[in-house]
Amino acid sequence: MPTSLKDFETVFPRLVEDLKENCRHYKLPDQALQWFERSLNHNTLGGKCNRGLSVVDTTQLLLQRPLSQDEFFRAATLGWMIELLQAFFLVSDDIMDSSKTRRGQPCWYLMPNIGMIAINDAFMLESSIYLLLKKYFRQEKYYVDLMELFHEVTFQTELGQACDLLTAPEDHVDLDNFSLEKYTFIVIYKTAYYSFYLPVALALHFAGFATERNLKIAEEILIPMGEYFQVQDDYLDNFADSSVLGKIGTDIQDNKCSWLVNQALKMCSSDQRQVLEENYGKKDKECEKKVKVVFDELKLQQVYQEYEEQRVGELRERIASLDESEGLKKEVFEEFLRKIYKRTK
Amino acid sequence: MPTSLKDFETVFPRLVEDLKENCRHYKLPDQALQWFERSLNHNTLGGKCNRGLSVVDTTQLLLQRPLSQDEFFRAATLGWMIELLQAFFLVSDDIMDSSKTRRGQPCWYLMPNIGMIAINDAFMLESSIYLLLKKYFRQEKYYVDLMELFHEVTFQTELGQACDLLTAPEDHVDLDNFSLEKYTFIVIYKTAYYSFYLPVALALHFAGFATERNLKIAEEILIPMGEYFQVQDDYLDNFADSSVLGKIGTDIQDNKCSWLVNQALKMCSSDQRQVLEENYGKKDKECEKKVKVVFDELKLQQVYQEYEEQRVGELRERIASLDESEGLKKEVFEEFLRKIYKRTK
Repeated sequence: MPTSLKDFETVFPRLVEDLKENCRHYKLPDQALQWFERSLNHNTLGGKCNRGLSVVDTTQLLLQRPLSQDEFFRAATLGWMIELLQAFFLVSDDIMDSSKTRRGQPCWYLMPNIGMIAINDAFMLESSIYLLLKKYFRQEKYYVDLMELFHEVTFQTELGQACDLLTAPEDHVDLDNFSLEKYTFIVIYKTAYYSFYLPVALALHFAGFATERNLKIAEEILIPMGEYFQVQDDYLDNFADSSVLGKIGTDIQDNKCSWLVNQALKMCSSDQRQVLEENYGKKDKECEKKVKVVFDELKLQQVYQEYEEQRVGELRERIASLDESEGLKKEVFEEFLRKIYKRTK
Repeated sequence: MPTSLKDFETVFPRLVEDLKENCRHYKLPDQALQWFERSLNHNTLGGKCNRGLSVVDTTQLLLQRPLSQDEFFRAATLGWMIELLQAFFLVSDDIMDSSKTRRGQPCWYLMPNIGMIAINDAFMLESSIYLLLKKYFRQEKYYVDLMELFHEVTFQTELGQACDLLTAPEDHVDLDNFSLEKYTFIVIYKTAYYSFYLPVALALHFAGFATERNLKIAEEILIPMGEYFQVQDDYLDNFADSSVLGKIGTDIQDNKCSWLVNQALKMCSSDQRQVLEENYGKKDKECEKKVKVVFDELKLQQVYQEYEEQRVGELRERIASLDESEGLKKEVFEEFLRKIYKRTK
């Protein structure tokens, strides 16, 4: 039975207490302590927690039984570490992208009296991961592996972000700079590792099945799945019903290096290319419309559907032929795929 | 014989190559690879490298012999990790403090086409520490201890920075918010741990003498020494000959929670307090002068000299009575103290 967000959320206040206890040990003045607590709650809570929840769900699938109270708490703690990692990235990405809102609220750095202090707050969210790892996993044989895993995935995500920022600066449109190769690098590194591979890798360690082979198989399935997830995200940004999606897509106006524009650049005529050159990345409704016309002319909706069927077919095949002899379970991946296949939001 | 900066600097290009190799392994596109290399060189090189050098010097003093080539390289690599940690902090602190220059050049975030990408660059400098730790220290028994040490010192520095930013925001003067207790917290956490304790703790691990007792003794001497160093820094900002110091002090105009203003607040009359209230933290030469008059009236120069003599006396006593039975050496601390006592820049 999948874990409910509500059950998962009951764990977080205990972790906040642990982190505060750490600060009190250092005699951190009260004003700064309260600030840290506010940052932890504002920036880590309020999302869907898909990544964190999937650590718990994957652990249950791997162990093929319900978790004890203590196991639930510890698996959820690993899940919250991904949520803290994401909070660290989102707080800082929002500054780098000049974003305005996040989860229906102003971005943290835009809240009253915060500003650039948000950068240090982001650092403290990242540090919280290692404080919690030390408190709850220090005695485990796989403690070093968990630290190395977080270091590696953090660096991978930073590489993805670096490439994204250099490929698609908000204020300078240069479609020559885009390519499907760069696109693939960005989505794999910026999203797939921490969102898809990390939860399963953590659960494998926790469940005691983190053999080299199992980690490799998980990576080989989850990275293409994460890539598919992001392609879908880009597709939905333009083609979804915005009332279902819950937001209005802005990728064209924001000069995003999205799957759609990269497909368009690959397929377009020189006339269509000129339309893209002149209109992509402009903060203008009319320009956006002209880009959308090119996307429709190139039948990108159909191109996407073919991509989706092919990619999902490949993933299903890989999952079906997966070797369960070292404790891995097909169900883990079927469950991830079920949640994203043909999603509309 | 102390290590020369030049010898220490020969190690860095090899580390940059290692980090680039890591990125190539991930197939990072070339543009982003070159960007990372530029950030590494710009932000890590060009300083005095006192912290990094002291890892090598301390190792030599602990082992009581010259280092082999390989030992030199590895001790220097640990030293460069502190320099990378400092680079991570300086790049981001400069954004948070709206600083303009660093080491005689524009701050990284103010260089052409950089801006807020500097935040991600700072993250990558931090990640570099753990990539290098993994490459060169993975096989050591003390590998976990090194990771935990960097995590802990990083968090301590972030706590110091958080407290500093909340206590002395550049744009809002409130002297009620200052206190010697907060001052002490800020300097110990923001500076002393990473600048004084960290180099010696790293050298103790590397030399094989990192017993709990030795680490504790080192902390008990180096943290008060780091506090003294920062008090001195604050003193020099106001009282040093700026042609010797190499810069003109700006702490008063910048609303810094410095040792001088905290001493002044403790000792001043209500008239003097009013002068401070009305003039401290204002970007105005005349206001600054009025604050300096109060500092002179309160004889802070003399108060400092008494503080210095007392603190140095205590430190010398602690060092003299230090237990060398577990491999610690008095010389290590005498050397640190020698470098800072009565410094004029």
